[in-house]
Amino acid sequence: MKIDVIPYASAIRPDLIKNRNVVVIDVLRASSVMVTALANGANAFIPVSTVDEARQKVVMLRDEETLLCGERDTKTIDGFHLGNSPQKYTRDKVECKTLIFTTSNGTPAMNQLQEATEVFIGSFLNMKALVHRFLELEDVVLVCSGTNNNFSMDDAMCAALFIDEIMNKKAVLLSDLSITLLKAFQKESGNLPLLLKDCYHLNLLKRNGFGEDVDYCLQKNISNIVPEMKNGKIIRG
Amino acid sequence: MKIDVIPYASAIRPDLIKNRNVVVIDVLRASSVMVTALANGANAFIPVSTVDEARQKVVMLRDEETLLCGERDTKTIDGFHLGNSPQKYTRDKVECKTLIFTTSNGTPAMNQLQEATEVFIGSFLNMKALVHRFLELEDVVLVCSGTNNNFSMDDAMCAALFIDEIMNKKAVLLSDLSITLLKAFQKESGNLPLLLKDCYHLNLLKRNGFGEDVDYCLQKNISNIVPEMKNGKIIRG
Repeated sequence: MKIDVIPYASAIRPDLIKNRNVVVIDVLRASSVMVTALANGANAFIPVSTVDEARQKVVMLRDEETLLCGERDTKTIDGFHLGNSPQKYTRDKVECKTLIFTTSNGTPAMNQLQEATEVFIGSFLNMKALVHRFLELEDVVLVCSGTNNNFSMDDAMCAALFIDEIMNKKAVLLSDLSITLLKAFQKESGNLPLLLKDCYHLNLLKRNGFGEDVDYCLQKNISNIVPEMKNGKIIRG
Repeated sequence: MKIDVIPYASAIRPDLIKNRNVVVIDVLRASSVMVTALANGANAFIPVSTVDEARQKVVMLRDEETLLCGERDTKTIDGFHLGNSPQKYTRDKVECKTLIFTTSNGTPAMNQLQEATEVFIGSFLNMKALVHRFLELEDVVLVCSGTNNNFSMDDAMCAALFIDEIMNKKAVLLSDLSITLLKAFQKESGNLPLLLKDCYHLNLLKRNGFGEDVDYCLQKNISNIVPEMKNGKIIRG
């Protein structure tokens, strides 16, 4: 299985993802929100790039039950129903709802993947299920969303965990970046708190009062949901 | 000291390098060629992006003693005096010459750095001297040239060696990518043949008959030259 990694959203190029199976990783916190909300019965996410686009989408979808969700600068957007804290996406709030979703890093990545074969959403929460889904597939491009168009260790170490796990199950062909992330991950024996101790984005969230979100998002394998993108929507796979 | 890393040439953005001290790293082989040729008495390199540009430059500089140097697809360009094999840049060939130089990965990186404060050239060959040069400087952006617009482990592990060495000498503030490269490097205790065993670019060079170049370029600290870019030329620092 051929494994490539794109280090952050702005490094996505059409030639890197065309006809490839893609996993979008935004551990803190868009991927973790999606896995959680879909597990709690949400119908679908519609990822959009801007706040204005989100508000227009609500009007266009006035026949559906929608919620406006997302963040800017880590915080809930004015007038939106939900921010980017996965634990707030409870069943009583999201069941049977369509979630219009815009985040700083994850959703811009998701809207550049039209030429991919399949697009999945990856996080620590659903890693085991994600790896299982790829046992039957022959290639993958792991797209780390990153932070502010730069490399972010939370996403990179999630990509590394995917590589570490799938290597135990099938033969792989690793790109240079895949090898490098895997070595970094293995240096600390996959100990996430140690690996991510100095991660910029993680520490920013903690400083902004989202330490509980961080702890939640770093849990491994608490969900079997593998979200997939179909026709511009993220749905339960 | 603040340390950032740019993972490959096409990821250079003006905001990442403006008013920063930059080290361009193209281990295999442009950086290693520059260190070697300047040590052997070459006057300067003029990095250009295209083969046509190189040929035009020779005409413009007809009053100087110039050589056309560089590679495409790892090989010497038709009609050029020298390719990209550092050991061919001997004193008898390059002394007092101005070298017009175009390579696939290194020179495009060098021509995007106009807004940097200072630009240096880094390689394994001159690492100790390079680190010494930065003892008095307060920040650095390590620009890995990469291969074909993708991440390449040879450059990344050279960046990691820089970080590993300078951390022993002064306090550092590391970006997420800096931390990741350092952990990967330390996973194999800095053992380059082991770290780079599966590096795509290194193996491509070996397959194309440049195994000796690879061995040469992976030697540490055989030169005290720290090339610098001044007014579009690379000269002995």
